[in-house]
Amino acid sequence: MEKATENGPNGAHSGRVGPTNPMVTPLLTDQYQFTMFYAYWKAGKHNERAVFDLYFRRNPFGGEYTIFAGLEECIRFISTFKLTEEEIAFVRESLPPSCEDGFFDYLREVDCSDVEVYAVSEGSVVFPKVPLLRVEGPVAVVQLLETPFLNLINYASLVATNAARHRFVAGKEKMLLEFGLRRAQGPDGGIGASKYCYLGGFDATSNVAAGKLFGIPLRGTHSHAFVSSFMSPDEIIDKSLHSSDGSSICEDFVSLVQKWLSKIQWSGSSHGAFGETNQSELAAFTSYALAFPNNFLALVDTYDVIRSGIPNFCAVALALSDLGYKATGIRLDSGDLAYLSCEARKFFVAIENDFGVPGFGKTSITASNDLNEETLDALNKQGHEVDAFGIGTHLVTCFAQPALGCVFKLVEINDQPRIKLSEDVSKVSIPCKKRCFRLYGKEGYPLVDIMTGENEPSPKVGERILCRHPFNESKRAYVVPQRVEELLKCYWPGTSDKAKEDLLPLKDIRKRCMEQLEQMRPDHMRRLNPTPYKQVSVSAKLYDFIHFLWLNEAPVGELQ
Amino acid sequence: MEKATENGPNGAHSGRVGPTNPMVTPLLTDQYQFTMFYAYWKAGKHNERAVFDLYFRRNPFGGEYTIFAGLEECIRFISTFKLTEEEIAFVRESLPPSCEDGFFDYLREVDCSDVEVYAVSEGSVVFPKVPLLRVEGPVAVVQLLETPFLNLINYASLVATNAARHRFVAGKEKMLLEFGLRRAQGPDGGIGASKYCYLGGFDATSNVAAGKLFGIPLRGTHSHAFVSSFMSPDEIIDKSLHSSDGSSICEDFVSLVQKWLSKIQWSGSSHGAFGETNQSELAAFTSYALAFPNNFLALVDTYDVIRSGIPNFCAVALALSDLGYKATGIRLDSGDLAYLSCEARKFFVAIENDFGVPGFGKTSITASNDLNEETLDALNKQGHEVDAFGIGTHLVTCFAQPALGCVFKLVEINDQPRIKLSEDVSKVSIPCKKRCFRLYGKEGYPLVDIMTGENEPSPKVGERILCRHPFNESKRAYVVPQRVEELLKCYWPGTSDKAKEDLLPLKDIRKRCMEQLEQMRPDHMRRLNPTPYKQVSVSAKLYDFIHFLWLNEAPVGELQ
Repeated sequence: MEKATENGPNGAHSGRVGPTNPMVTPLLTDQYQFTMFYAYWKAGKHNERAVFDLYFRRNPFGGEYTIFAGLEECIRFISTFKLTEEEIAFVRESLPPSCEDGFFDYLREVDCSDVEVYAVSEGSVVFPKVPLLRVEGPVAVVQLLETPFLNLINYASLVATNAARHRFVAGKEKMLLEFGLRRAQGPDGGIGASKYCYLGGFDATSNVAAGKLFGIPLRGTHSHAFVSSFMSPDEIIDKSLHSSDGSSICEDFVSLVQKWLSKIQWSGSSHGAFGETNQSELAAFTSYALAFPNNFLALVDTYDVIRSGIPNFCAVALALSDLGYKATGIRLDSGDLAYLSCEARKFFVAIENDFGVPGFGKTSITASNDLNEETLDALNKQGHEVDAFGIGTHLVTCFAQPALGCVFKLVEINDQPRIKLSEDVSKVSIPCKKRCFRLYGKEGYPLVDIMTGENEPSPKVGERILCRHPFNESKRAYVVPQRVEELLKCYWPGTSDKAKEDLLPLKDIRKRCMEQLEQMRPDHMRRLNPTPYKQVSVSAKLYDFIHFLWLNEAPVGELQ
Repeated sequence: MEKATENGPNGAHSGRVGPTNPMVTPLLTDQYQFTMFYAYWKAGKHNERAVFDLYFRRNPFGGEYTIFAGLEECIRFISTFKLTEEEIAFVRESLPPSCEDGFFDYLREVDCSDVEVYAVSEGSVVFPKVPLLRVEGPVAVVQLLETPFLNLINYASLVATNAARHRFVAGKEKMLLEFGLRRAQGPDGGIGASKYCYLGGFDATSNVAAGKLFGIPLRGTHSHAFVSSFMSPDEIIDKSLHSSDGSSICEDFVSLVQKWLSKIQWSGSSHGAFGETNQSELAAFTSYALAFPNNFLALVDTYDVIRSGIPNFCAVALALSDLGYKATGIRLDSGDLAYLSCEARKFFVAIENDFGVPGFGKTSITASNDLNEETLDALNKQGHEVDAFGIGTHLVTCFAQPALGCVFKLVEINDQPRIKLSEDVSKVSIPCKKRCFRLYGKEGYPLVDIMTGENEPSPKVGERILCRHPFNESKRAYVVPQRVEELLKCYWPGTSDKAKEDLLPLKDIRKRCMEQLEQMRPDHMRRLNPTPYKQVSVSAKLYDFIHFLWLNEAPVGELQ
């Protein structure tokens, strides 16, 4: 049904605290977080103050940008984080019997009141290696958050990015509908997809639960089964329909439809393209129009689009028009969507001309059926007349790349910077508690993201600063920023006295995302072979420190 | 931690009714199910008795079999299916204001007491086009179930199949651990993955919530962050460790470890391969052993596997051995797993020989890091010494194919068979309320699945029956079955007097799955180019009827 459902700024959901999915509990984590917790506790280290960075190493889908999403759910999660007695009993059962009782007493006290979370704003355009979250707190507690935070952010950011990419290819003018619930990876794979596809630029979803939870506009009409559940128009019992303005009543809408059908058949519009249309389809369309005279949208490919679906639709739509209603449109769910949409458009235009029905030529055409970035692009190249796309499987399961690889790395403990080495340089972590800035150039585009040590002076507008690649000494550039944006903001201050950023309603996050995407230099956004965003960089001081630490930690080889 | 956690036959979960995920409500469906519901109601058709088949058209991952999973969640869902007042209010809000009040009164009464569900047993090996579920009931109510049933079955079956394929490549002897929570598509993407990977043949999961819900054994030790959170062994305060039998105490376990480390360094085992090992790693291993002396498993690749991780592990393991404990093993999470596992094995064997520690050579080696079917296969070909595989991203997101395409098609209404046509023959539905049988041959292998009309006589052991491809007249074969198994059993009898099949505990479903996989002819199971299972077939009578109906419904073209 073509109708938005919005319950206040953030849907009916806005009143709730805690995670959207009640299954997101402190036990939604890896077992090793609890074994480590015990080992930290046993060593008396559990309260040591640690800093972890959450980041990804590579943009998904071969692109050069990512949309950050999932933050609100992380904050909801820690806002109510506390193990129940039942959960503690289970943890005890799952650990070796030698674990000491005192630990479980301690677990009872654990919450996130002493944790601080700094994050990029949800819906932002983000790049590899720059922390999306910096999480500080007692090492053992922050460790427990690793798995749920990654789980809540990885898919959210992935599917929001996928939605943004689909929007980019479809263009701003098209209506994009998320139809993926039935193929999603489980129930909240579906609900999450609906939320984050909306964030990434979709207009509506078919998922009723997501509509209710998040205030996302809902769309939906009928399926093939509805069409084939009818046998013929004879079975329609109540054939009457009031006119749109309520002034009159048509006692036999079924006959009115039949009349229009034969007019169309003998008119020039049809070019003699069809004979007898399918009667079960005609019955289904007529019935659906009787139920929703203001919202008549028909799925026209159950039998044959050109020879049955479109003429049947037009007959019903013209009958509705007689009574002052305007039909919404058709949906195509199979076949050559470019060709069929063009044929449908021609037919609608011919009807408008032949029968003098103003606006009929602009009747909306929705296309669905296994769409993805490539097929949207191909449709654009072929030329088509589709106004709205319903996209499911490829969108919500992120078929082209179904996982984003965010990681959560220790960068400092007890004020000591830590580095994670790897034989693969791209996997070496960037140590230290850091601040992150986005530097903008003269034309308003973001130029580079730079990380600095916590106590370094911030980059300043108009002041030249050296930006260095963290691991490649020859890659460096001076930048004179025209605008400087600090990326990590405080979303959970813990016991610090930092001001806490508000979590915005989903619609506002979506708006931020759309604005940030607008702001990017277009060549970063191209679907194929995009220009990389300037390699994420570090300050000269941080660069030197990283390399000092690296040499210190790496073993010296011995050639033999 | 290497410990199974099992709470009764089906975990702590067994007492609950309703869906595992509380977000699975009647609103977890597509909006068009409600618009159709209204249109059915308005046409007075909503109670017409309909039969829908749920099936898929193609096996995933280029294979020739699929594991059916998700049934229990479907039955849990309908067992408590009822719209709340709040949900009805939301549906009303999301439909056009012209919808009549009587409809919403009617919605209040709707439940699944009059629905019947026949299904293949969960954990069965299944094939394309044969219904996994046959759902009968009032057409409008059964339509509402389409989306949630597809959602609950598509991913469950996909990931169970993926797990079975990984098991097939890894071989029966290896331990397979599911480590995917952090990369899964949302929270219950993770929980579902853990459940259905266990069903498909995995041994354990890292996901604590899934361990609690389903009684799946848990595994987990420590991460890189744990290692780098330590600076040096000096920071270990409580250095004492009781011997395994409690008879004595070692006051300075740290020194004992150091002593072993220098012994190893100067022994033949090391071949002079390392000098100074990493001290933060040594401290972390020692601490972890002090916390879990019976379950010491160390992640050895934070700095350098050969020059630091393995010698450090061995020093701690030998110190534990002095006190009567047996170390569990190591985990490798990067690098050349085949090479490193062989080097580790050599080292362990050398230690066993040099220091006379029986069984040390068999110390367990776990490998993780982006494993999938291909890498398992490549490891097998190279030769390796890995005992257990921890598999995450590729397994749980089904990277190779992240969606299964189950559909839900109307096959009969009011005792009238219905067919859904399509220009693509593979998408034409098989009409009629059907029974499905698996026919077994002399060697005990399943030969073919056959669908018959509801009232046809069942295939009988020893009686020749003609099995026809539903859409290819030249493909047909006589079969004399040695065993006949009816596939669809009654899991929800509705108001019929059918006996209801029990839902088995997850462990028993897993066992059924393992047994059915064993029973398949090996060439169907091959990873590459498997032999197709004999094309799914229909009886001669059903074949004739399908083609009669097809001709009846399809429009006749006119060449111009």
